[in-house]
Amino acid sequence: MNLLIQNGTILTMQNRKITREGAVAIEEQTIIDIGKTHELKRKYGRGYEKIDAKGKVVIPGLVNTHQHAAMSLLRGYADDLPLQEWLEKWIWPIEKYMTAHDIYVGALLTAIESIMGGTTTVNTMYHYTPEENEAKAFADAGLRGVVGHVCFSWRKSEDKKALEDLAKNWHNKANGLIRISVDPHAPYTVDPEYMKELKEIRENLNEKHGSRNTPIICHIHVAETEDEIEKIQSAFNVSVKNGIMEYLNSLAVLDNHVIAAHCVALTDNDVKVTKEREVKVSHNPISNLKLASGISPVPKMLKKGVTVSLGTDSPCSNNTADMFEVMKTTALLHKGSNKNPTVMPAEKVLEMATIEGAKALSWETEIGSIEIGKKADLAIVNMNKPHLNPIYNEASHLVYAAKASDVETVIINGKIVMEERRVTTVNPEKVMKMVEKAKIKLLERLNANVK
Amino acid sequence: MNLLIQNGTILTMQNRKITREGAVAIEEQTIIDIGKTHELKRKYGRGYEKIDAKGKVVIPGLVNTHQHAAMSLLRGYADDLPLQEWLEKWIWPIEKYMTAHDIYVGALLTAIESIMGGTTTVNTMYHYTPEENEAKAFADAGLRGVVGHVCFSWRKSEDKKALEDLAKNWHNKANGLIRISVDPHAPYTVDPEYMKELKEIRENLNEKHGSRNTPIICHIHVAETEDEIEKIQSAFNVSVKNGIMEYLNSLAVLDNHVIAAHCVALTDNDVKVTKEREVKVSHNPISNLKLASGISPVPKMLKKGVTVSLGTDSPCSNNTADMFEVMKTTALLHKGSNKNPTVMPAEKVLEMATIEGAKALSWETEIGSIEIGKKADLAIVNMNKPHLNPIYNEASHLVYAAKASDVETVIINGKIVMEERRVTTVNPEKVMKMVEKAKIKLLERLNANVK
Repeated sequence: MNLLIQNGTILTMQNRKITREGAVAIEEQTIIDIGKTHELKRKYGRGYEKIDAKGKVVIPGLVNTHQHAAMSLLRGYADDLPLQEWLEKWIWPIEKYMTAHDIYVGALLTAIESIMGGTTTVNTMYHYTPEENEAKAFADAGLRGVVGHVCFSWRKSEDKKALEDLAKNWHNKANGLIRISVDPHAPYTVDPEYMKELKEIRENLNEKHGSRNTPIICHIHVAETEDEIEKIQSAFNVSVKNGIMEYLNSLAVLDNHVIAAHCVALTDNDVKVTKEREVKVSHNPISNLKLASGISPVPKMLKKGVTVSLGTDSPCSNNTADMFEVMKTTALLHKGSNKNPTVMPAEKVLEMATIEGAKALSWETEIGSIEIGKKADLAIVNMNKPHLNPIYNEASHLVYAAKASDVETVIINGKIVMEERRVTTVNPEKVMKMVEKAKIKLLERLNANVK
Repeated sequence: MNLLIQNGTILTMQNRKITREGAVAIEEQTIIDIGKTHELKRKYGRGYEKIDAKGKVVIPGLVNTHQHAAMSLLRGYADDLPLQEWLEKWIWPIEKYMTAHDIYVGALLTAIESIMGGTTTVNTMYHYTPEENEAKAFADAGLRGVVGHVCFSWRKSEDKKALEDLAKNWHNKANGLIRISVDPHAPYTVDPEYMKELKEIRENLNEKHGSRNTPIICHIHVAETEDEIEKIQSAFNVSVKNGIMEYLNSLAVLDNHVIAAHCVALTDNDVKVTKEREVKVSHNPISNLKLASGISPVPKMLKKGVTVSLGTDSPCSNNTADMFEVMKTTALLHKGSNKNPTVMPAEKVLEMATIEGAKALSWETEIGSIEIGKKADLAIVNMNKPHLNPIYNEASHLVYAAKASDVETVIINGKIVMEERRVTTVNPEKVMKMVEKAKIKLLERLNANVK
């Protein structure tokens, strides 16, 4: 299908270029033209379905670079608890009883929520199972995503089988919507040898299933909390000097296709290594605050030239998949904690949620900005709302005033996946019923075993 | 009109009592009954308009205890700037050209936004003019509010006239929707003598226009930034020892009808004085972060038993009137900054946004909880949304996952002011057009004078 979005304000996010009274022409999956409406209207008349964006802002779809999509099933199950109690007494005990179907249903709910909030790409790390899984959920919802399998030292052979299957069945599949990643859980749960082996596995899988433009990346938690160095040292009897990123560097597992989530407890040396190795960062301010993990030194990393993108983290530690909230929290938090209201201006934050997100997933040749030749991943935000009036500066409104619910229409890979707030790919009412049923059964399994 | 809200989950916020399958009966302005739907249905049949709240949560309307409602006209006009540059080069120069009509229109826009986000009471401080003003805007929108006139040392006689007029025409007016306050701007802009005089003025106005249950309160900025002590000292050649609250106490201007906004830079002694004098606090985390003012010691104040409520601050330093955002930010910020994920649990934050807000405005005999005999100020939140599923705990969802846009129906003083997202009292489309026109004219006046 061909589309012409017209009469809108286009924030291309290509060098922050804004086109007013603008239009975007889309053929099949691809953006083929961007310009003034009166010009594009003449060029793309018949055969183009028109979308009127008058009074609206057109942005690249938001890129959420850290999720555990399946965990929406546990949204609000446990909050306001100390981290270890939260994990050990609440989250892990119930996760044991989650089935492949639960993972699919949870991820489907997150996919719907993501789309409804203008997010078009999600990077998710969870347990992969061949039957039902997050990749299938994203593909069914029409959401673009990098789907990983999370690896732990205690289940190496299981992991390897899962990674093989995931790469074979899902890398660059579903019309290119889905890519896959190799996900060592964290430096304190993956021993040094396995960490190296997983890098080799990634290289081998890339040779078989990847390409220069469609790489299989690595998604890992790094330095989420202050005590992580101690956890690594005591788990593997190694010495971690000069920080965790430096430790990973000493294992030779870092490269430009690694995305490290959190990066809260980084040393200055870590920041230097991150830049040198071109490791990408996913900043998750809401989760870091909610779990009291600390504040990532984002302004410092940006100053060094590190690619910093934004993530929500799981619906269990946030508790939404809302990238608008993450943008606002990012802009606010670093101003407050640095006592400087000029850091993290709106325009920069908007880049982090779009083009920097695409770079962080090694996907910037196809997504992250509205550019001719890129895939058509777009969100149209309706500004005709009391809380978005008057307008002086669109970027300011998108970061400081707009809400996920202001997103009206979403296009992914050239396909309209939400039109005037109605999701077109799956039925949200039906999915919510599936979720409720899955939740009840999950609690039944948990309670049966606890008793 | 009589109403019966039925089949909902009622979070009364009276001792955190929750009634499931619950109903609330309203006669004219007042809540007359609360209970199980099957019981209330029998008692309140004919003559009661029914509102179905199945799958929804009914909460007391949110109370926003610090606003400058008129400033929505400048939403997004200037952001990401150093505080003094922001004020002196951007905000104050343009505010000079704001007319009485601009103030009315801006406040009307904020009133609509507030209602659409489930806020039913707003405490606002701005310049009062008899012709058009914030009080009229709130009354027209059907929003409950405390409307103040902000006082400065440099315009004493003007202030006194404005306060007289405000009290006479608006205190306890519009069916009791509007109350008024006497608002010394801040300890660094109001000299000690004038500060004392304003307390006397408040007492006199209270004798004429107030009562024990309808007091005229005092609304003031206190300790918004770290340098405020210096600012006071250099402005008035006084010595401020042991903190700003202590300084105000030494002037004998503090009492239980004073609400102090921000309270960021409080000493431990200040916290003690705040408690002793029963001064109420309005916490504005989003504004404090955006302007890099610092972080208010809220957990410490709560521990001491201080009444801490929540505010958005102006749409210029936030940039919304969204109390859901403020609730989430409050819950997150203090966990993060105290490195303790158990502080500020969802239930407590919800209290701060409702019953504690009512107490902070000395209005708790009438609002802040769903109780028999109180005014019917309610918000109905639709939980049948992907991002609010599944449900384990309603309070968690309201604080961590719900958005202003999930509020479906709002009742203030027994009147439905929003029904299924349609505001019934004023026409938002029309108001947005008035706002755009006012903005253009304001910029014209500014530019004509700058040139």
